[in-house]
Amino acid sequence: MSKFNDIDRLCISTVRLLAVDAVQKANSGHPGAPLGLAPAMHVLCRDFMNVNHENVDWPNRDRFVLSNGHACALLYSTLHLLGYDYTIDDLKRFRSVGSKTPGHPEYELPGVELTTGPLGQGISNAVGFAIAQAHIAARYNKKDCEISTNYTYVFAGDGCMQEGVSSEACSLAGHLQLGNLIVIYDDNSITIDGKTNLSFTEEVAVRYRGYGWEVIEVKDGNDNLDAISQAIKLAKSNKKQPTLIKLTTTIGFGSLNEGTYNVHGSPLKPDDVKQLKKRFGFNSEESFVVPQEVYDFYKEHMIERGKKANEEWNSTLEEYMRKYPELGAELKRRIAGILPPDWESALPTFKPEDGDLATRKLSASVINSLAKTLPELIGGSADLTPSNLTRWDDAIDFQPDDTKIGSYMGRYIRYGVREHGMSAILNGISAYGYNLKPFGGTFLNFVSYASGAVRLAALSGYPVIWVATHDSIGLGEDGPTHQPIETVTHFRALPNMQVWRPADGNEVSAAYKVSIESKATPSIICLTRQNVPQLEGSSIEKAAKGGYAISEYHGNTTPKLDLILVSSGSEVSLCCKSAEKYSKDHKVNIRVVSLPDFYTFGKQPFEYRISVLPDEVPILSVEVYATLSMCKYSHEQFGLDRFGMSGKSKEVYEYFEFTPDGVASRIAKVLSFYSDKTIRSPVRKALA
Amino acid sequence: MSKFNDIDRLCISTVRLLAVDAVQKANSGHPGAPLGLAPAMHVLCRDFMNVNHENVDWPNRDRFVLSNGHACALLYSTLHLLGYDYTIDDLKRFRSVGSKTPGHPEYELPGVELTTGPLGQGISNAVGFAIAQAHIAARYNKKDCEISTNYTYVFAGDGCMQEGVSSEACSLAGHLQLGNLIVIYDDNSITIDGKTNLSFTEEVAVRYRGYGWEVIEVKDGNDNLDAISQAIKLAKSNKKQPTLIKLTTTIGFGSLNEGTYNVHGSPLKPDDVKQLKKRFGFNSEESFVVPQEVYDFYKEHMIERGKKANEEWNSTLEEYMRKYPELGAELKRRIAGILPPDWESALPTFKPEDGDLATRKLSASVINSLAKTLPELIGGSADLTPSNLTRWDDAIDFQPDDTKIGSYMGRYIRYGVREHGMSAILNGISAYGYNLKPFGGTFLNFVSYASGAVRLAALSGYPVIWVATHDSIGLGEDGPTHQPIETVTHFRALPNMQVWRPADGNEVSAAYKVSIESKATPSIICLTRQNVPQLEGSSIEKAAKGGYAISEYHGNTTPKLDLILVSSGSEVSLCCKSAEKYSKDHKVNIRVVSLPDFYTFGKQPFEYRISVLPDEVPILSVEVYATLSMCKYSHEQFGLDRFGMSGKSKEVYEYFEFTPDGVASRIAKVLSFYSDKTIRSPVRKALA
Repeated sequence: MSKFNDIDRLCISTVRLLAVDAVQKANSGHPGAPLGLAPAMHVLCRDFMNVNHENVDWPNRDRFVLSNGHACALLYSTLHLLGYDYTIDDLKRFRSVGSKTPGHPEYELPGVELTTGPLGQGISNAVGFAIAQAHIAARYNKKDCEISTNYTYVFAGDGCMQEGVSSEACSLAGHLQLGNLIVIYDDNSITIDGKTNLSFTEEVAVRYRGYGWEVIEVKDGNDNLDAISQAIKLAKSNKKQPTLIKLTTTIGFGSLNEGTYNVHGSPLKPDDVKQLKKRFGFNSEESFVVPQEVYDFYKEHMIERGKKANEEWNSTLEEYMRKYPELGAELKRRIAGILPPDWESALPTFKPEDGDLATRKLSASVINSLAKTLPELIGGSADLTPSNLTRWDDAIDFQPDDTKIGSYMGRYIRYGVREHGMSAILNGISAYGYNLKPFGGTFLNFVSYASGAVRLAALSGYPVIWVATHDSIGLGEDGPTHQPIETVTHFRALPNMQVWRPADGNEVSAAYKVSIESKATPSIICLTRQNVPQLEGSSIEKAAKGGYAISEYHGNTTPKLDLILVSSGSEVSLCCKSAEKYSKDHKVNIRVVSLPDFYTFGKQPFEYRISVLPDEVPILSVEVYATLSMCKYSHEQFGLDRFGMSGKSKEVYEYFEFTPDGVASRIAKVLSFYSDKTIRSPVRKALA
Repeated sequence: MSKFNDIDRLCISTVRLLAVDAVQKANSGHPGAPLGLAPAMHVLCRDFMNVNHENVDWPNRDRFVLSNGHACALLYSTLHLLGYDYTIDDLKRFRSVGSKTPGHPEYELPGVELTTGPLGQGISNAVGFAIAQAHIAARYNKKDCEISTNYTYVFAGDGCMQEGVSSEACSLAGHLQLGNLIVIYDDNSITIDGKTNLSFTEEVAVRYRGYGWEVIEVKDGNDNLDAISQAIKLAKSNKKQPTLIKLTTTIGFGSLNEGTYNVHGSPLKPDDVKQLKKRFGFNSEESFVVPQEVYDFYKEHMIERGKKANEEWNSTLEEYMRKYPELGAELKRRIAGILPPDWESALPTFKPEDGDLATRKLSASVINSLAKTLPELIGGSADLTPSNLTRWDDAIDFQPDDTKIGSYMGRYIRYGVREHGMSAILNGISAYGYNLKPFGGTFLNFVSYASGAVRLAALSGYPVIWVATHDSIGLGEDGPTHQPIETVTHFRALPNMQVWRPADGNEVSAAYKVSIESKATPSIICLTRQNVPQLEGSSIEKAAKGGYAISEYHGNTTPKLDLILVSSGSEVSLCCKSAEKYSKDHKVNIRVVSLPDFYTFGKQPFEYRISVLPDEVPILSVEVYATLSMCKYSHEQFGLDRFGMSGKSKEVYEYFEFTPDGVASRIAKVLSFYSDKTIRSPVRKALA
């Protein structure tokens, strides 16, 4: 006998119609997936999800990820019933400017765990949730006191299954045996272009079994609530494999156009809405209707259960604090999102006599220090560990115990050659909570593979870190396929993104300092393969401003500056060397400005910025990159508006004239050109 | 009895040692994969590959793709033996500046079909090769005259299997039943981090079977030449499925460190090289040795066979020209890479009275015209056909015949939700030849998902086209997850990349004109979802310069310009409207400059550029994008250095003040600020 009855069907119809009404009112949106997935959503909430709208950040809540984010009318409607801060009026303002119900779910909204919509991301973020949960459980759970027990549930559609980012993340999830991850795949055979037989005839179940997942097929996802519930229960009981529940549904269930792409992404016809309401037993003339018994049912069954679970967890936490005061204090600190006192004293500082070192090696020193100080640091690399130098000395790999090559206690993740999957996972780990500070390594050029996830980190404000080594032609022999040219400009243009390119050890420490302290801005830290000197004039404090005058070379006795060289990373020392020689040879005064991060420099007050880049001095930028972004902070640019070359680092620099002589010839041209011209600082602007 | 004997083993040893010597000489590179894959390479060349070093572009040559491009020492060594223009001295200059043997294979080199190295790309490009071959065969082959019969062979490693881009492309390849595609997967269980058990324990064979591929396992790829040959033969006989040959090899075979990650990416120790040479029967004191019998064997068996096949094909082509003169003429034209005469007369032109239309709709008109005129146009979309409007009226889908929903004759490809896979496939189609002009549609924001492939298009010079609709906040309700902000700056910074953002119908035609004519530069054409007016002052000819003064508004009778508004796409009409009103209200003279493509504008002579953006006039840019790139061509920027918002297009523009009033308030500030200042054109520079 079914445990579901009329009230369940009424709840489902209510959610379906709320979603449809929201789309109609907005005259925009996606009714199809909500109509198809409302039964699964109801069953998930009724029987499994423990959440608490009064404490939305309760650390042990179950996580729900709507990877097919365009179905958000379903999510907002359900969150409304679950007591979250969404009124019926909010639902009526769906997809309108400034509303709490935008066209895709956004991280900062109550009950929304992740920003989703770009397909493939949510399910991949969810792998990050599952990793984070497994790790927190391994670190803190005690047999008599289980702190972390939550599951991560995902809804995903055909699009999410087709995107490569999810292939990467799900392959890794299978490898990592993440039994706490349950994906409900809305197998409705429809995408925007039409039937999936146009482009997507692979056997998804076979593929996921190949990844090492358990796959459960539920054929009648429109009706068979018991089967859905059974499947989720079975999935939960499998502690060694993530589960894909392949749920066959009808897109736009109940609509006259059900089962076609017409119901995917635009409102239904008014007549269709009427018959739909009638069919579900609602008054076809009314909109946004929630029967009181639906509110009551959600309150009694879901809201109360969630609140109770939260209360029990609070007691568990108290008990934990008593029994395990040391770990308990760490846990409490992390839940509060506070770094340990004096953590930054772990950051190394450097003097010129420390000699030449690659900034990737300097980064390795920082990581080694921080890993000891910050238990929340959780790192990894997309199969470039020996190149990125991201693994600290006594790191334990994050691996299932039975592999004997690590444990879930471990904090070093072997991501495989999966930059995009890694990056989406970083986002998930960060969003999971417990002050987790994830970083992932790859070559700077291949951060671009992860653009989709990097963008979502910036948009959502997940303060993750990419350790991006081999940051220029300085990587040498691997050649132009591996040498970034446009990459830094790309990410400098991304709002809410730090792009650090430290010039030496102190600047590396500064980059990590600001990145680790960041609450809502991600960072890419660009690091050299090749050695650079430790510079006179650098300091953590100065570099932490994002830009500063690192040194001045006076070839004459007047205080007047003749030229500023502005640069970043490995070219700062080149500028210093060039300026030193040129100023002496030509009796001019040259300042070198190091600009390790545009974002941070841009946040400094105008007075500071103009003091670094004053009026009346020509500014020449030097970076072995596309010159486009340096147009913002210089009058003239010496750069590389072409692809690089395979060869020894030094020879490639010489080939492109990034040498003291090459810089000198540009300085001469710039000085001559500007000698009779009025010059305004690029930071002095009419529009702030 | 084996058909292979001592000479085969000698050939293999020779290639192995050439590759090792090249890496040793360079003191940089990857010996492991060449040592493991040399047997497969030899068997492939000996028994299957038909190529002709004297006619490297022979259209019906078999295609070889080294997807694990870091193994290029293997490729260069083999090309040397195959008679291609690589001397032993070239091999000695491996990975050095200006050499013909760079650190990863580059498209322009003889015998190198594709630029590879960034993992996952080559195998995905190869899907494009296979699609292109199937299409050319379907279009031109006659029962008595087969023009196109070649196969595409790919070597790929674990990295290529892990990357999501290959998952996307290979899923589609299975759907498309591409029997002409044969991938040899070097299953050596080692990646840079160590054993694949660190991160990659999925069953690749199961996954590929799920994609619909045939999978053949060859366990002893180090020795069993017969098994390799049999497997490839079997793969060739399967006309309905692509084949993955899972070839177990030992990375660094023969080295003292064989089977470990130590042999992956750095030279062997000198002693190791010595023992290796001894082991393979070579003098351990000599380097770069090719026994004469090896040259002879390659000449007799491979070079001669390839030449003969080419000659036979030439005869077939002659016969074809006689029997099928019309198709034959088209074929000949396409092989020569020449567009049909007067093709550009198919491009529509527009007048203001044609009214408001979305540029994506204007693009649809162009595509409709061009599809009739250009049989080489081969389009598609990553499951956004009804949004991108990329499918012309009588298009036939590229599908296997037995699906009954298209045919290989078709020129419209349903890529599924696979932007990166699609883009890599576009690159492959373009590189295949026959003047194929591939385009692929997606939202501009999701071209970023494909950054890895876009970059390789620019680096290699594949003139492909991305039809990138929904190009700004103007897409409205879908909100910030879908609204590009940084995207255009990213691609403007990419060398050799056109980024068109046309303002109206004439500019759309211009964008296609320049993109279709391009021989070695790819294009992204950014198009609006929302309507824009047809502008007075636009023309194909003017827009084809990349930037021009589209109109001037004189509020007083002097010729002196007070301000220039520079803009692109949908903001050009906003600028015109704003300038018209402001100039009248304030009696000033304002020029509006439309800058549809930075790349093309940047190629114009200085005199032209300075005439468009003259000295002594303040220039204000207006784009609903990150302002970074407009710093290149303006003094002041009005843009969007934050993420967008979900809401109706018009309301979102209003929210961010992209209205005539909003522009006017910026104009006022700029005029006031610059009233007492000397102004230099941003195109007047000391450094060209």
